[in-house]
Amino acid sequence: MRIDIITVLPELLKSPFEASILKRAIEANLVEVHFHNLRDYTTDNYKTIDDYQFGGGAGMVMLIEPIDKCITKLKSERHYDEVIYMTPDGETLKQGLANTLSLKENIIILCGHYKGVDQRVRDLFITKEISIGDYVLSGGELGAAVLCDAIIRLIPGVLGNETSALTDSFQDNLLAPPIYTRPREYKGLKVPEILFSGNFPKIEKWREDQAFERTKARRPDLLEE
Amino acid sequence: MRIDIITVLPELLKSPFEASILKRAIEANLVEVHFHNLRDYTTDNYKTIDDYQFGGGAGMVMLIEPIDKCITKLKSERHYDEVIYMTPDGETLKQGLANTLSLKENIIILCGHYKGVDQRVRDLFITKEISIGDYVLSGGELGAAVLCDAIIRLIPGVLGNETSALTDSFQDNLLAPPIYTRPREYKGLKVPEILFSGNFPKIEKWREDQAFERTKARRPDLLEE
Repeated sequence: MRIDIITVLPELLKSPFEASILKRAIEANLVEVHFHNLRDYTTDNYKTIDDYQFGGGAGMVMLIEPIDKCITKLKSERHYDEVIYMTPDGETLKQGLANTLSLKENIIILCGHYKGVDQRVRDLFITKEISIGDYVLSGGELGAAVLCDAIIRLIPGVLGNETSALTDSFQDNLLAPPIYTRPREYKGLKVPEILFSGNFPKIEKWREDQAFERTKARRPDLLEE
Repeated sequence: MRIDIITVLPELLKSPFEASILKRAIEANLVEVHFHNLRDYTTDNYKTIDDYQFGGGAGMVMLIEPIDKCITKLKSERHYDEVIYMTPDGETLKQGLANTLSLKENIIILCGHYKGVDQRVRDLFITKEISIGDYVLSGGELGAAVLCDAIIRLIPGVLGNETSALTDSFQDNLLAPPIYTRPREYKGLKVPEILFSGNFPKIEKWREDQAFERTKARRPDLLEE
């Protein structure tokens, strides 16, 4: 899989891709991630990438021209399955969408910044608009990092233990059950006895019940889906 | 405002806090962000922070003891309004929760990693569990960065233009209207004429209509709230 990220702040994205699972996935050649600095696609001396919005109002708008140049260049080099724009009014990211995207070959992710991009960028180039949640961030960069993390960890071989991702929250519309590790007792708080029973079908049943109860208490909406 | 982030991967969080709005907010002393490496709170030579889960199953679980040590030390130094745990089964982050948290004085954010923390950490120390969305990430670090960004940009003085955050998506349960900037025409695509009318009440009305139409088309659930 190849991911091209277009941004005005490539330096913001540096450390998340240089640590932990993303780093390992890149080093193992399971995924390629390329950053493109929009300022490299400007034509004026000031490397202008934004301007005031027509009609007045607070906040700057990202210009269409540098974005067009960057996307057009990338598309001339290979086929892209999706050109994604990170924006709070996009489709809300859910585990299912992450699963789908993890099967793609090449994707472009465009990070908005300031008030966002000129609407015509969305009309002309974007095939999918994604929001990571109902809140506003100062730019699309963290959203892009979140999307990449959610996708990349699903690529076979990225997680050490293949079963680990499948028992995560949401993969079966249930939250994960409580988990415990050493010590058996800590400041009076004990680990549930059943986990020491050695009776794995019974433990499995207990975990399913716990996952169901937690989902019912915290996220009944997931059970309705 | 002071934010203390407890993590096993402080290096992952480096660049988001060294760029853009978070950097400016920190430099302007509008917020203090401190990272605490959990490995500094271990007592064994291997700096162990996780172990296998009781009852079997894939994925490691974060030990209670180093987390207890770190949180207890911080709490002995000052009062904290919230001790937050980033987890996919927490309360879903929405703009309203970001607004509320931006008014707090001191908060701790604990990042889960691997399969998560020992349940007793949650029972003993956590006052609020937050999820940034219905998907699974390889750790709580990106979630913590997202939460910090959503909160910090709301602190008065952080955004250059105070009105900018108030016209964002979600602040009034509406998505933002389309925005445009130069040039007036790009490859045949024109900016809507009304934005050049100079009639600001009419422009305002057009934007409200567009915001409502977009919300109705994309996120009718927001209108029901």
